Amino acid sequence: MQIKLKLHNTLTGKKEIFEPLNPTHVGMYVCGPTVYGEAHLGHARSAIVFDVIFRYLQFLDYKVRYVRNITDVGHLEQDADEGEDKIAKKARLQQLEPMEVAQHYTDAYHRDMELLNVKKPGIEPRATGHILEQIELIEKIINNGFAYEVNGSVYFDVEKYNEHKPYGLLSGRKIEDLQSGTRELAGQSEKRSALDFALWKKAAPEHIMRWRSPWSVGFPGWHLECSAMSAKYLGEQFDIHGGGMDLMFPHHECEIAQCEAGNNASPARYWLHNNMITINGQKMGKSLGNFITLQELFSGNHQLLEQAYSPMTVRFFILQAHYRSTLDFGNEALQAAQKGYKKLINALRILKEFNYEEQSENIDEKNTQQINQICDNCFHAINDDFNTARLVAQLFNLVKKINSIHVHQIALHSIENATFNRMKELFTRFTEDVLGLKEEESFDGKALINALLEFYKEAKAEKDYETVDAVRAKLKQQGIVVKDMKTGIDWAYEE
Amino acid sequence: MQIKLKLHNTLTGKKEIFEPLNPTHVGMYVCGPTVYGEAHLGHARSAIVFDVIFRYLQFLDYKVRYVRNITDVGHLEQDADEGEDKIAKKARLQQLEPMEVAQHYTDAYHRDMELLNVKKPGIEPRATGHILEQIELIEKIINNGFAYEVNGSVYFDVEKYNEHKPYGLLSGRKIEDLQSGTRELAGQSEKRSALDFALWKKAAPEHIMRWRSPWSVGFPGWHLECSAMSAKYLGEQFDIHGGGMDLMFPHHECEIAQCEAGNNASPARYWLHNNMITINGQKMGKSLGNFITLQELFSGNHQLLEQAYSPMTVRFFILQAHYRSTLDFGNEALQAAQKGYKKLINALRILKEFNYEEQSENIDEKNTQQINQICDNCFHAINDDFNTARLVAQLFNLVKKINSIHVHQIALHSIENATFNRMKELFTRFTEDVLGLKEEESFDGKALINALLEFYKEAKAEKDYETVDAVRAKLKQQGIVVKDMKTGIDWAYEE
Repeated sequence: MQIKLKLHNTLTGKKEIFEPLNPTHVGMYVCGPTVYGEAHLGHARSAIVFDVIFRYLQFLDYKVRYVRNITDVGHLEQDADEGEDKIAKKARLQQLEPMEVAQHYTDAYHRDMELLNVKKPGIEPRATGHILEQIELIEKIINNGFAYEVNGSVYFDVEKYNEHKPYGLLSGRKIEDLQSGTRELAGQSEKRSALDFALWKKAAPEHIMRWRSPWSVGFPGWHLECSAMSAKYLGEQFDIHGGGMDLMFPHHECEIAQCEAGNNASPARYWLHNNMITINGQKMGKSLGNFITLQELFSGNHQLLEQAYSPMTVRFFILQAHYRSTLDFGNEALQAAQKGYKKLINALRILKEFNYEEQSENIDEKNTQQINQICDNCFHAINDDFNTARLVAQLFNLVKKINSIHVHQIALHSIENATFNRMKELFTRFTEDVLGLKEEESFDGKALINALLEFYKEAKAEKDYETVDAVRAKLKQQGIVVKDMKTGIDWAYEE
Repeated sequence: MQIKLKLHNTLTGKKEIFEPLNPTHVGMYVCGPTVYGEAHLGHARSAIVFDVIFRYLQFLDYKVRYVRNITDVGHLEQDADEGEDKIAKKARLQQLEPMEVAQHYTDAYHRDMELLNVKKPGIEPRATGHILEQIELIEKIINNGFAYEVNGSVYFDVEKYNEHKPYGLLSGRKIEDLQSGTRELAGQSEKRSALDFALWKKAAPEHIMRWRSPWSVGFPGWHLECSAMSAKYLGEQFDIHGGGMDLMFPHHECEIAQCEAGNNASPARYWLHNNMITINGQKMGKSLGNFITLQELFSGNHQLLEQAYSPMTVRFFILQAHYRSTLDFGNEALQAAQKGYKKLINALRILKEFNYEEQSENIDEKNTQQINQICDNCFHAINDDFNTARLVAQLFNLVKKINSIHVHQIALHSIENATFNRMKELFTRFTEDVLGLKEEESFDGKALINALLEFYKEAKAEKDYETVDAVRAKLKQQGIVVKDMKTGIDWAYEE
């Protein structure tokens, strides 16, 4: 079966067949977090969506170089060109060095991503670690005539650039509309036009994060790092650039302009954007009080939450929707996701423990054919712009087949051997390798030890020494010793 | 009780009372890994030793800024000034971009450190992320007359420096001895003297990792990063600098020289060095075939290993020795550590579950006094240059007390209430917070479910429906459903 992978390219607005620049390798860049706060559902969605894309490209045997950055400087309040750096502000409030703040939230992000079973990118560059590369890119842009210096700061000249290449291609905006939509600068800004954006900012005296440059001691503009780092690690042209839809304008638009102006190349061939998460239909926002961090979700510790939701429940919830659709958070939806995840994992356990011994003489042709069709449909789903919603639906069709052979084992051997093996392999690989779902042992092992000890106590009281010995032996196999003391019965790890 | 913390300062060769520059804050810098291979026992020892120091300083209520770096450029083969970069070499062999190699082994290091319960440092700077800072430090050293440029490379002038400040203070070496001990350069080197070391190297054409500098497109010398990054994040003078004893010369000696030459300041007041791990009495080395990575230790997958050793067993093994002593690895020693670790953790479990209800009328004065003495001794041990070997011995004295009140509960209430509480708090904090040992649930939870299901089956066969219902109920409490099918009995996660 040969079905080609299609993906929706924001740059063209069309679904296109994926053709990498190099037939066996894929270069992919995704915008990572600005590390000044705990990760929330929005971070989880972007990370999980592109994780599945990364995983599926690897499933297809591409050698993928996946770069996801850490923004630890230059991202100012309100994504603006004036104002305080988000990380420096947090550092000021917490009386810490900015790099301690960045490290703390980078570590917290890594912890959450690991819980969500998000694979680590191959390279995770930090903006502060690439100041020289950013300075060099600014020099190229200035030399090509698309940026100007004012008082030690450097701005990108959008109008000048637009004479060369249209600005706004990605987001489908026209410069005339943008111009009429922006307020007059009224002389209080260094920028020639409100559309221009900062490449380098001279540091105000109170600004802690600062580096030497040909223009001033200062810091790079937020949009710059992604252009400099993607070019460094993936080349001036690469395959896929991803990020949340909220980054499409101006961030990604500016990235394209910087790369075109500096390297005379459009950086990525395919631009992919995941849609947003709403909370009970509303936009998520700190001021709206409906801002839920991942740690709050995992612990259930938030007024909007009826219970805790495990990382795999959250992951499954996100994958039940197509990445380009909006996704509304709510307790009911999460509870349904919890059910669905457990259904899938139960089927996975059954499948793994099944031994297909011998093909029956009476092949159930219809069932065999249905299973093959569902397997084909799994590929159709994921190849259609990574439609995990449809893939999950197809996997549930397989769950029905798996459950029925679990209950009526006779049905198992009436499936053609090759078809059974195909189902087993695909179900396992799609669930674990592509969707990245893994079994969460949600039970408390110590409670199980105590349950066994209760049988031990009862048996002892009834002088049923056979059972007493049996419990003792089973626990000993697990490195647990039963302690029979005058003061009671307890257990300990075998020393 | 007020006992002062003393530590052995390599710089003076003496045990000194610890007095931080700022009475409430401590700045500490420790040399981290060069990320071109899997972490081994040597990495574990250094990381765990300084983790305990970090933890104990926090226990003492210091606000600690702990910086541990990642070396991802500049560390050449044989720690030399000529030859291939360790990371670039690995990248060449694995056909990867150097930053992919660095990221891979950084992630692997983080994984292993997390397993070993090593706390993350507050800041973890990468050498490649601080090229500008390193260039600025070189400029200062050149301006002060202690470095010279040859063909685009810059070298530190050790003899010139020695006229200003003695070189070799840390390792106790004299420049005359060093000079007579080094081979003649015989004109094939750019260096004026064999003692000189590289601050900046012009990149050979095949060298991939390279940055622009005032002298050439090249890369920084290995020793430089620690001087630049410690000054950036801790200031030109800070409290503690740590690392393995193998780094004392030349690496740390060069760091001091660079800081003195560039900033006119001796960077750290206290230099701490952990001793090495030998394997069955031999030095560990790749060529000797006795090189054991942490992953091999944890899995038992190495010809020298009789079994797998859990991360906490390894951690306990390392803490059973004082950090300045050599430590010999062997199966017997590890097996003894496994026993010791479990003894400690069993006592911790007992202590946590104990309810001290009411003080008896007959206080056992002698026992109470002994317990107080042991608690005092714990402080004496750790305050004496972080002597974890002696601290562990004292904790085992408490284990005896804890076990005896476990078996004879009457003994518990005969200990003075305040003393019991002191023991409980100190034993818990020293074990968990300072030594960083935590309970490893070494049993297999699913095997326990299956053990319960066996009782279920038996009870069902014997029509003992009370037991059948009891097992079913206990498993349901843990979110496990028993599946009674024609084809057999199985369990599933409740959906």
